[in-house]
Amino acid sequence: MKKGLRMEHRIHNFNAGPAALPLPVLKEIKGDFLSFRGSGMSITEISHRSPQFEEVLDDAILRTRRLLNLTDDYHVLFIQGGASMQFCMVPMNLALPGKPLNYIDTGVWSAKAIQEAQQQVQEVKVIASSEDRDFSYIPTNYHVDRQASYLHFTSNNTIRGTQWHQFPDSGGVPLIADMSSDFMSRPIDIKPFGMIYAGAQKNIGPSGIAMVIMREDMLNRVPPDLPTMLKYTTFKENKSLYNTPPTFAIYVIDLVLCWLEDTAGGLEKIEEVNKEKASLIYEVIDSSEIYQGTAEPSSRSLMNITFRLSDKNMEERFLAEAKSNGLQGLGGHRSVGGFRASLYNAVSVESARTLAAFMREFEKSSV
Amino acid sequence: MKKGLRMEHRIHNFNAGPAALPLPVLKEIKGDFLSFRGSGMSITEISHRSPQFEEVLDDAILRTRRLLNLTDDYHVLFIQGGASMQFCMVPMNLALPGKPLNYIDTGVWSAKAIQEAQQQVQEVKVIASSEDRDFSYIPTNYHVDRQASYLHFTSNNTIRGTQWHQFPDSGGVPLIADMSSDFMSRPIDIKPFGMIYAGAQKNIGPSGIAMVIMREDMLNRVPPDLPTMLKYTTFKENKSLYNTPPTFAIYVIDLVLCWLEDTAGGLEKIEEVNKEKASLIYEVIDSSEIYQGTAEPSSRSLMNITFRLSDKNMEERFLAEAKSNGLQGLGGHRSVGGFRASLYNAVSVESARTLAAFMREFEKSSV
Repeated sequence: MKKGLRMEHRIHNFNAGPAALPLPVLKEIKGDFLSFRGSGMSITEISHRSPQFEEVLDDAILRTRRLLNLTDDYHVLFIQGGASMQFCMVPMNLALPGKPLNYIDTGVWSAKAIQEAQQQVQEVKVIASSEDRDFSYIPTNYHVDRQASYLHFTSNNTIRGTQWHQFPDSGGVPLIADMSSDFMSRPIDIKPFGMIYAGAQKNIGPSGIAMVIMREDMLNRVPPDLPTMLKYTTFKENKSLYNTPPTFAIYVIDLVLCWLEDTAGGLEKIEEVNKEKASLIYEVIDSSEIYQGTAEPSSRSLMNITFRLSDKNMEERFLAEAKSNGLQGLGGHRSVGGFRASLYNAVSVESARTLAAFMREFEKSSV
Repeated sequence: MKKGLRMEHRIHNFNAGPAALPLPVLKEIKGDFLSFRGSGMSITEISHRSPQFEEVLDDAILRTRRLLNLTDDYHVLFIQGGASMQFCMVPMNLALPGKPLNYIDTGVWSAKAIQEAQQQVQEVKVIASSEDRDFSYIPTNYHVDRQASYLHFTSNNTIRGTQWHQFPDSGGVPLIADMSSDFMSRPIDIKPFGMIYAGAQKNIGPSGIAMVIMREDMLNRVPPDLPTMLKYTTFKENKSLYNTPPTFAIYVIDLVLCWLEDTAGGLEKIEEVNKEKASLIYEVIDSSEIYQGTAEPSSRSLMNITFRLSDKNMEERFLAEAKSNGLQGLGGHRSVGGFRASLYNAVSVESARTLAAFMREFEKSSV
C-alpha cells in the first residue's frame, strides 16, 4: 500500500472545484469511515438498496427541499456525469418540437451547453452574449422568444468571475440554469425555473454527481425512445436508484446539506457570509494599485473572484508566496490565466481574511 | 451534524455491490482523509488537474495495464454512469453500419444491454440464451455472425450465480464483455476483446464509476456527431479528464489495485484465493440435505454463490441467524429471492470459512 504522510495540517483552499468542504463534514466522514453508523461496513461498502442508504438519500432530498423551499411539483434527482452530461441531456429531453431553444452565453460553460444543443436541435438561438467584452459582464439586453422551449443560462461563471444577481425575466418561458458554481449559496425563488442542475464539486459535495431539480410538467416532454440512462423520467420514477448511484457522493452531499442547514443556518445566512467573504477581497482589489479585477463591478461573482497583476513575473511570485503562506488554488483557469479565489460556502471567513491580509502585504512589499 | 456511532466493529460483508473493500484500503483512506498525502486538503478537495491527482490517475492506469497485461493498443478509461450507461454507449459508438450486433443472453444484465441496443440499432441478434432453464447455465451452443459488429456477453451473472469459465470463441469478431462482477478476479487473455467494461462497485472500488478497456481500432467506429460526453473518443483524447471525473472513486480504485498487485499478489494469486473461497461454500451446498445451488455446476460463479432452502420460514430464519452471527448481505436479488453469497476479491478466506461453518451449523440445528 502507498501510504499517506498522516500529517493533518490544513491549508486555505481556494480551488475552483473540486473545492473546500466543511471541516466538520470531513471529520465526520473520517470518524465513521470503517463502520458507517455502527453498521460494521464502510459507507462505500453498503448496498444502495439497504435501509441505511435509503435513509441517507431521503435525508438529502428532504434537506434540499427545505433549503430551496421547493413546492411539491419539483423533484430532486441525482445523476452521474456532472454538468457536462446535462449539457446534452437538457436539449435531448426538454426541447419541444418546432419550438426554438434560447441560450444566453456568458462564457465557456454556456458555450459548451450551446454547442451540445446545436448538435441535436435545429433551432438554437443565442439571444445574448457577453463575448464582445471578453465575458466580463452579465448581459441585460435580450429578447426571449415567447415560443421558446426554454431559456438556458449559467448562473455563475467560474472562469470569468461573473454572476447573475437577478435572474433573467423570461416572461413565462421555463428557465433552465446551470448553477454548478453557486448552487445553494443564496436563497432563490424556484417558481420561474423548469429545471436547475449543478455539478456537486463546488458547493455541495465531491465530484462525480450532479444534482437536478426538475419541475413535474417538464417531464412530460421527455421522448420515450431515449436510452434509459439518458431520460430524466428514469431517475424520477426510480428515486435516482434505477442503477447503482454514487453512494459515497450522495452521503457527503447529505452531510454538507446537514451542515448548511443546521450549523451554517440555511441559505439566507450563508449568503450573508458569502457577501462578507467576497467583500473582503473586492475591497483589497478596489483600493489597490496593482490588482485589477477582471469582471465588471455590477456583474461580480460572490463565488469566484478573478483578478490580475500587470506584471507576469509578479504573478509568479504572488502564487509562490501565497503557497508558502498556506494559501492554495489561486491560479486562474488555464484558459485565461491570472488569479481566481473561489469562496464557496465551505471556505471560511478566516480563509478570506487571511487571503485579504496576504494580498495587502504582497502589495506593500511590491511597490 | 448527524454523528455516526464510532464503533469500529466490522461484519462479514457478502453484499453483491456496493461490496466489501480491502480493510487496508479503508484504513488508508481514513488515515489520510483530512490531509491527502500531506497536501493539507482532503482527496475530495483537491483539483482533478493538480499534479497530486494526476499521479493517482496515472498510477491507476499503469497498474491496470500491468495487472491485465495490456498491450499498447489498449486504452484504460474511466466513465461515469456505471455499466448501465455502457449498455447504451456500446451500440451508439461501436455498431458498424449494416453489420448486425450479436448478443448472448445470460440473464437480466445481458437483457438490459440487449434492450438498449435494440432501441438504437436495427439488427440486434440474440445468438444464444439460457432463459429456457431460468438462466441457470452458460450457453455453449451458438453461431457468431462472421459479419457482426461485435459479440457482447456478460462474463458473470450476479443474480443467477453463473460465470463464463471459457470466453466465447467469436472467430475474430471483437468480443465486448460486461465484466462488472468479475473484473480483475482472474487473469484474462485480452487479445480477442475489442472492449471490456466494469462498474467498479464489485471488485475494484466504490460505486459511481465504470472502468473501460478499449482497443485502439474500435475507436475508429465512433460516429463524430455523438454528444461529447457519450463518445469514447472524448475520454481517450482527454485521459478521462474532459470534465471533472469522480476523483474520490479513482483514488479508491488506485488503492484497491495497489492492494491487489502488491499485497494480494496479482490476478493469478487472487484467482487461487477466489477458487478456495468459493469451494468452501460449494462443498457445503453439495454435501447438504437442505441447501440447493441454483446454478448448474459447470457454470457456477466463483464470485456470486446462489442457493435456496426448500422452506420459506427456514429461509427467513437463516437470514436472521446469519445476521446475528455477523454475516450480512446474504439475501438473493429481489427479483429471484433465496440467498447469494458474493465472494469478491476483498472478501477474506476467513469470511468464507465463517459462512461455511455457519451454514453447517444451521443445517445441523434444522434437521
